[in-house]
Amino acid sequence: MPVAAYEPPYYAVVFTSVKTEEGGRDGVAGGYGETNERMEELVEKIPGYLGMDHAGSPGGLSITVGYFRDADAVEEWRSNAEHLAAQKRGRAEWYERYTLHVAKVERSHGFEREHG
Amino acid sequence: MPVAAYEPPYYAVVFTSVKTEEGGRDGVAGGYGETNERMEELVEKIPGYLGMDHAGSPGGLSITVGYFRDADAVEEWRSNAEHLAAQKRGRAEWYERYTLHVAKVERSHGFEREHG
Repeated sequence: MPVAAYEPPYYAVVFTSVKTEEGGRDGVAGGYGETNERMEELVEKIPGYLGMDHAGSPGGLSITVGYFRDADAVEEWRSNAEHLAAQKRGRAEWYERYTLHVAKVERSHGFEREHG
Repeated sequence: MPVAAYEPPYYAVVFTSVKTEEGGRDGVAGGYGETNERMEELVEKIPGYLGMDHAGSPGGLSITVGYFRDADAVEEWRSNAEHLAAQKRGRAEWYERYTLHVAKVERSHGFEREHG
């Protein structure tokens, strides 16, 4: 059964990352988990924030996709002062590498299995 | 150290999925793993295919992001006959739900830790 995702156009911000050995251990590098939770709280307050998907396994590649209504919402999140500070700390302490792709979604669709 | 991702504009195809209990077990539903490997072989032959990222944990959400040079390359992959057959089988047998977002990347950047 086809289901609607968000109504295009909207923006998807794709963040792929690999953490350092230290950064990947909860609590050891200090603050990654707490900061991550705080960022999730913060982004939900951005007008035009639509939602987020996350997948990953410890020690491997993580992918987080944030969905936003328009480019202004993406920019507001990008330039949020607390978020900028967290990004800086991420480069200094937590990430071995990451890539960020900011993209305008032109079409989308979903599928959900029917039961019963 | 900032590193280049692909040169924008390019396309990102974001596929998020949750498999059925059966579909998530290797070999049980038959053919998911083999089909997945075959799709990876096939997509690499598409002119304009740039690469792929994948993250996920068994039983949870999986995210696969395919990168393509332009909309024509995305369309060639979407309409590939063997890929269409695999999509049909995915809906019938393997996926509990999925969402597909086709997006044009406007900017991107990467970071890689310096060692030494």
